[in-house]
Amino acid sequence: MADTYNQLQDYFQRLSRIQHAITFLQWDQHVMMPPGGNESRAKSIAELTSMYHELLISPTLAELLENGKNLVQNYDEIVRSLNEMEREHLQAKCIPADLVKAISLAGSKCEHDWRQQRKDNEWPSFLINFKEVVNLCRQEAMARQAAAPDKHKTPYDALLDLYCTGDSSELIEQIFDKLESELPQLIEEIIENQVKTQLQFSGDFTTEQQIQLNRKLMDCLQFNFDAGRLDESMHPFSTGDVGDHRITTRFRTTDFLDALQATAHETGHASYEAGLPRDWQGLPIGNSRNMCIHESQSLLYEKQLFLSKPFLEYFTTFIHDLLPQTASITSQQIWEHCTCVQSSYIRVEADEATYPLHIILRFQIESKLINGQIEAEDIPEIWDDRMKKYLGLSTAGNYTDGCLQDIHWTDGTFGYFPSYTIGALNGAQLFNAIKNSVKNWEEKLMFGDITFIRNWLQDNIWSKASSLDSQEILQQATGEGTNPKWFIKHLRERYLADR
Amino acid sequence: MADTYNQLQDYFQRLSRIQHAITFLQWDQHVMMPPGGNESRAKSIAELTSMYHELLISPTLAELLENGKNLVQNYDEIVRSLNEMEREHLQAKCIPADLVKAISLAGSKCEHDWRQQRKDNEWPSFLINFKEVVNLCRQEAMARQAAAPDKHKTPYDALLDLYCTGDSSELIEQIFDKLESELPQLIEEIIENQVKTQLQFSGDFTTEQQIQLNRKLMDCLQFNFDAGRLDESMHPFSTGDVGDHRITTRFRTTDFLDALQATAHETGHASYEAGLPRDWQGLPIGNSRNMCIHESQSLLYEKQLFLSKPFLEYFTTFIHDLLPQTASITSQQIWEHCTCVQSSYIRVEADEATYPLHIILRFQIESKLINGQIEAEDIPEIWDDRMKKYLGLSTAGNYTDGCLQDIHWTDGTFGYFPSYTIGALNGAQLFNAIKNSVKNWEEKLMFGDITFIRNWLQDNIWSKASSLDSQEILQQATGEGTNPKWFIKHLRERYLADR
Repeated sequence: MADTYNQLQDYFQRLSRIQHAITFLQWDQHVMMPPGGNESRAKSIAELTSMYHELLISPTLAELLENGKNLVQNYDEIVRSLNEMEREHLQAKCIPADLVKAISLAGSKCEHDWRQQRKDNEWPSFLINFKEVVNLCRQEAMARQAAAPDKHKTPYDALLDLYCTGDSSELIEQIFDKLESELPQLIEEIIENQVKTQLQFSGDFTTEQQIQLNRKLMDCLQFNFDAGRLDESMHPFSTGDVGDHRITTRFRTTDFLDALQATAHETGHASYEAGLPRDWQGLPIGNSRNMCIHESQSLLYEKQLFLSKPFLEYFTTFIHDLLPQTASITSQQIWEHCTCVQSSYIRVEADEATYPLHIILRFQIESKLINGQIEAEDIPEIWDDRMKKYLGLSTAGNYTDGCLQDIHWTDGTFGYFPSYTIGALNGAQLFNAIKNSVKNWEEKLMFGDITFIRNWLQDNIWSKASSLDSQEILQQATGEGTNPKWFIKHLRERYLADR
Repeated sequence: MADTYNQLQDYFQRLSRIQHAITFLQWDQHVMMPPGGNESRAKSIAELTSMYHELLISPTLAELLENGKNLVQNYDEIVRSLNEMEREHLQAKCIPADLVKAISLAGSKCEHDWRQQRKDNEWPSFLINFKEVVNLCRQEAMARQAAAPDKHKTPYDALLDLYCTGDSSELIEQIFDKLESELPQLIEEIIENQVKTQLQFSGDFTTEQQIQLNRKLMDCLQFNFDAGRLDESMHPFSTGDVGDHRITTRFRTTDFLDALQATAHETGHASYEAGLPRDWQGLPIGNSRNMCIHESQSLLYEKQLFLSKPFLEYFTTFIHDLLPQTASITSQQIWEHCTCVQSSYIRVEADEATYPLHIILRFQIESKLINGQIEAEDIPEIWDDRMKKYLGLSTAGNYTDGCLQDIHWTDGTFGYFPSYTIGALNGAQLFNAIKNSVKNWEEKLMFGDITFIRNWLQDNIWSKASSLDSQEILQQATGEGTNPKWFIKHLRERYLADR
């Protein structure tokens, strides 16, 4: 038994070393690589990905897993570790190689053409590519469901499992129903009551200045620069491996707050990864749980911690220090600027109050689409209908700002969207529990002391890695599974009581 | 036949994709990675290296090679391509895996301890580690020789083949004998006649200024920034893959000429790699020939091209432009500063006239050491003896500036040193041929036109890749194999006639 499990551990650590290579080759591709490197880089990543995949679906691994499962019954940690190993193996194995390839090809084409079609408001020609992507993704979903019919009630659940594992579509639907019934009215109330502050900047924030400021923020958030970097890229992201967590952000000379919020967000992601237990390094049980937990960490850092009034007040000193041209802007003005609520067409620009409605709309569409209850042709009408209902905005005939705005569906990433909002809810719920655990939390944040937050997250979230399901993690940390009431409470407090 | 050869091509292209990953993971390790990343990076590189090695020694490959060789007899290019494939396969196969591991461990330990021992002038304790490295490397050399006894006359030749393939120790000895008999006297003459200019800088050259200046130099040398980068690292190096050539250098605020010369050097290396034929991409026949040719390109760029009076005069305009604080320094002064000849203890700081003597000393020691004609204990005495004879300097009791100065032997890199000097000779010989091919070369360089040099190297060196042996390349390009007379002629012209 010990021998089989040791072999499995070695096997997955080997996989994690190949994954390390892919991770940093991709980071370099986005941050450092000159355009000429694209072709050989793409080939190298494809080669490693295929080696990774071959190892993950190999009969040798299947046999080791079978032996392992037969031998352990009573060791909880090992059972859970084996389950996570098996999950990765089955997720890789249940899709025929030519379907994977077909989705990749159709997705690449659809995404590539979409970049122009979106600009041109070209729904009909997009639809041609997109129907093929949907068709193939339905096949993928059905194949995944067929491989684990007890686990996935619908084909869509099988895709959801890739990003939100443990949070079923049934659970998400219940949660979203609650938000759907409360948010539109709450948003109206917020908009009526808010002091609308939109700061206008003159556009002289240099990249060098902003790098210093963002590094300062990461320092304040206790990011360890001996085990990570901050760099610039087209879109902010974070990636890395044990001891080396890379954050990127984008700097606009006209707005330093954009990068700061992105940096807080990515630092949340990176802190979670850095906090995963070393003992499980390289094993599936040692990975981050799912995107619903991951996004809870980034949004906790960004929305709950960075945009809390006491912390922002503390940090404004550094803003004044490192960007002397902001001397006349108060912490309160910055806070009002960053927490302005308004109905808008574009998800990625939406504030935290309206954001969930954008997600709910996408969830409703993509779940029905994958389960065959609607067709791709139906999307624009549903989109327009929901946008009017939720945010009072019509997208009729405006595909660019409607259903053509996101990249996710173009390459077949169905099942990812819910994690943004479940993450936001989890983040609010966790932060509420953290505040309850410490009497003088406001005072601490006012002095930039965030150690109590990191310690709490380390104990309750990061150290759990994938040894528990996401709802078990929430349950153990806060006494209940994901409950939207904490997010609603957060909105009420921040936007109605707190102003 | 076509089928077998196609399979072999696919096989080696697969290897080259793994090599691509290793290359850029190492670049990142030296240029970007925070210290915390070291452990997982080392494991990932080791994993890929071992996968690479397993593929390279596999019986499947051996069989394909056997089939290929039996089937082709008349196709010169394919024969040569198969030979290069087989060379890589045999080089990897002929060493038992545990010897590779033992050398790696002993080398790591010896190199690690050496860093302190060198500072402390600690020969006796170094000797303990080093004897183990020598012992293992002798085993390696004998195993490599035994695998190809017709090819390698001595065990040392088998190690030489890793870096200088095609240039035997017999050939190198002949060449070095000639240099040994002429250089010491020539150097005396040079030192007597030279105008000694040592510029003193006040130390205000910022990294930003120097990056701009070095990028300008790379522009002048026609480096394509869409297919490469310049970055900063502890030691200058160049690496990369098709379409993505990375150069690094080191910037000292006190001396901008140091980085410029390093950049010219590394641009030579990178230009060679970038000029290798696309048709053979990923195949052994498409690789750079050996380090003797590689170093000829870097030294041609650095010593022959950059330090030619007309080009340096042209480039001084940009130095004045981008470093206004140098306005009062003339091109002639810069040239005199960069071409100052003097006897010195340290190889890496040596000028181009004395450098070969440092190499000859090392060649004489390492060849005898590997072939068992001397022991590690004998090194300090021989070192002192040769330094006195060649450069009039004694290193008796001074190990720090004597036999402990280089990193190469500490990790078992025997057989590499000769390539520095064979490269310098080849570089002088090639540049002489280039000058003979164009009437108004001086005028061209005075206007910064180096296209005729790139075109000549493209046709005569870069396009040949590994389809010819190194001496065949020299023969076809200049009418003869490596001949030291062109290097001596270069020294006489530059240091005696030209001043």
